[in-house]
Amino acid sequence: MRNSIQREVERFLSPAFRTIQWKGDHLVLLDQRRLPKDEVYLELRTPEEVASAIRDLVVRGAPAIGVTAAMGMALAARSARTRGTKEFLESLDKHYHLLMRSRPTAVNLRWALERQRRRIEALAGSDPDEIQAALEEEALRIFEEDVLTNVAIGEHGAQVVPSDACILTHCNAGALATAGYGTALGVVRSAYRQGKVQMVFADETRPFLQGSRLTAWELQKDGIPVTVITDNMAGHFLQRGEITLIIVGADRIAQNGDVANKIGTYSLAVLAKENQVPFYVAAPLSTFDGTLESGDRIPIEERNGEEVLLWEDMRLAPAGVTARYPAFDITPNQLITGIITEKGVIRPPLKERIRKLLVEE
Amino acid sequence: MRNSIQREVERFLSPAFRTIQWKGDHLVLLDQRRLPKDEVYLELRTPEEVASAIRDLVVRGAPAIGVTAAMGMALAARSARTRGTKEFLESLDKHYHLLMRSRPTAVNLRWALERQRRRIEALAGSDPDEIQAALEEEALRIFEEDVLTNVAIGEHGAQVVPSDACILTHCNAGALATAGYGTALGVVRSAYRQGKVQMVFADETRPFLQGSRLTAWELQKDGIPVTVITDNMAGHFLQRGEITLIIVGADRIAQNGDVANKIGTYSLAVLAKENQVPFYVAAPLSTFDGTLESGDRIPIEERNGEEVLLWEDMRLAPAGVTARYPAFDITPNQLITGIITEKGVIRPPLKERIRKLLVEE
Repeated sequence: MRNSIQREVERFLSPAFRTIQWKGDHLVLLDQRRLPKDEVYLELRTPEEVASAIRDLVVRGAPAIGVTAAMGMALAARSARTRGTKEFLESLDKHYHLLMRSRPTAVNLRWALERQRRRIEALAGSDPDEIQAALEEEALRIFEEDVLTNVAIGEHGAQVVPSDACILTHCNAGALATAGYGTALGVVRSAYRQGKVQMVFADETRPFLQGSRLTAWELQKDGIPVTVITDNMAGHFLQRGEITLIIVGADRIAQNGDVANKIGTYSLAVLAKENQVPFYVAAPLSTFDGTLESGDRIPIEERNGEEVLLWEDMRLAPAGVTARYPAFDITPNQLITGIITEKGVIRPPLKERIRKLLVEE
Repeated sequence: MRNSIQREVERFLSPAFRTIQWKGDHLVLLDQRRLPKDEVYLELRTPEEVASAIRDLVVRGAPAIGVTAAMGMALAARSARTRGTKEFLESLDKHYHLLMRSRPTAVNLRWALERQRRRIEALAGSDPDEIQAALEEEALRIFEEDVLTNVAIGEHGAQVVPSDACILTHCNAGALATAGYGTALGVVRSAYRQGKVQMVFADETRPFLQGSRLTAWELQKDGIPVTVITDNMAGHFLQRGEITLIIVGADRIAQNGDVANKIGTYSLAVLAKENQVPFYVAAPLSTFDGTLESGDRIPIEERNGEEVLLWEDMRLAPAGVTARYPAFDITPNQLITGIITEKGVIRPPLKERIRKLLVEE
């Protein structure tokens, strides 16, 4: 069973690169800060290293963060398993909180860590070795489920893509943002296989350039045609009728369908409405936050403004000037044409349909 | 008279820097490609050098391009004045066309060159020395008029700025984009002097970063508070109510009030409408193109996509990936709250009011 799932998952992973690899006693991450110039893989052996890698954007993208954090818990168990049960559980609890704090907006982080916590609770009274094995198994299961979920998102999403489509996407919601295949780029991959994709327009996505550095990189690796534009050009191409539809990922979705995603997403949704172009969000059910009624309550990470003012060691503005850096924004549900999930496309009225889906879950 | 105008103009020029300086036998330009890191001034002695400087963005901004081109014609006359009258006029004609082709979108370029051509035509039969003196005088007059026009724009515009305003601007429509003082930033300067400006938000304006490199630089020099944001953040701050109004410049305005300006301007106008925030354009009457009925007819310069993919010598996307670079976009008149000119603020219905103003001219 496990082997057949592994083979199935393997089919959908890029032969050219791996975002996240589990190696039993350590985790290997493709260092996304250094793409596209260098393809460097980092080995992480402790939960502290995993938390730093999430915070410092070695790995990013809500589903990938979730998978990585789950593996971080497996490493926490491995490093503490020789201690007594009480100390072992305390250590797991400490690392659970450490990983939970690594980034605030992506809800998949919490979702994955809670799965691990439930495994620990279900094994109350078991010895550390058993718990460690369970956390490792659960981390691998989250990894595999994520790939298969993305493939399902891709297949459902491809149905909303018309032929000869020019698809605009923002940031990177691809294989690099997930265990593999991608959410928004999963839809692109499935639609491309069906011969429907003429061109992918990738917003460069300042300040971290996930679009030009990551989306362009992974689409190029898969031979899918891609054109990079700066974020401020999207409106122009929408106005000129050069974009057929927009598909983005999500970091957290509230009960009413408000979506937190990479800064700039809200602007695209408004521009899509103005130009009557469909605006889709592609995300697994693990991105829905059943505890929040609306997007107002989603915490928006404000990162250091220096990240806007510096590119590597080059200063883009005069010394002494300040900058702001909200890393995400909220797209209100009424701007969204549909949310593409592994269970199908949720269409308005989003609030009622999301509630139904989350209850069924 | 000339001296009193010069003194008046001098009052409004920054004591800290000069964008364009006329030195009799040459022209000095602040090299805007190298700001904010280096403040380098280039001496230009031939119209060919002037045309290259405009094309290569040493100088940019519609009014500044117009002033520079007019000075280019004065240099053309200086370098050809020792030839016979026929050869002299042929040389002027050749350089007129060379300068006209240097950039396509800013109409002030054509406007300034046509002023010089009319001077030449009015002096038909005069000798080269007389024509050369007239072209130099006209260039200086265009320079001085531009500064005083900007000050008038600033004073009219300050009236639409409420107290404690947070003003969002795009690109650089400042002293660096004009002979001095600025159009959109002229309004900011006048409103700041009146104590009304709490903060200027400057879109960084990819790919050339006129916002973070130039607007932040010149506002910092004048002690006006500025916060840099990436272009994709403007929508978020508008949604959150942190922006009181938007003021941008223009490269060309059609008869119906459609505005060509730096790529990204259209998106801001749509986002302003969505969030019910006033959207103003500040531009001299020389930016109006009386020959074009609407914005559809304004030529949009498409620059080399490599300028999107490279920052100095750093490649931002994988080798082999392509990019698009439309340098301007068109904001339709119905998204514009008002156009601030040296004659006052034109409010909708823009088409009728612009026609009236251009006829009065």
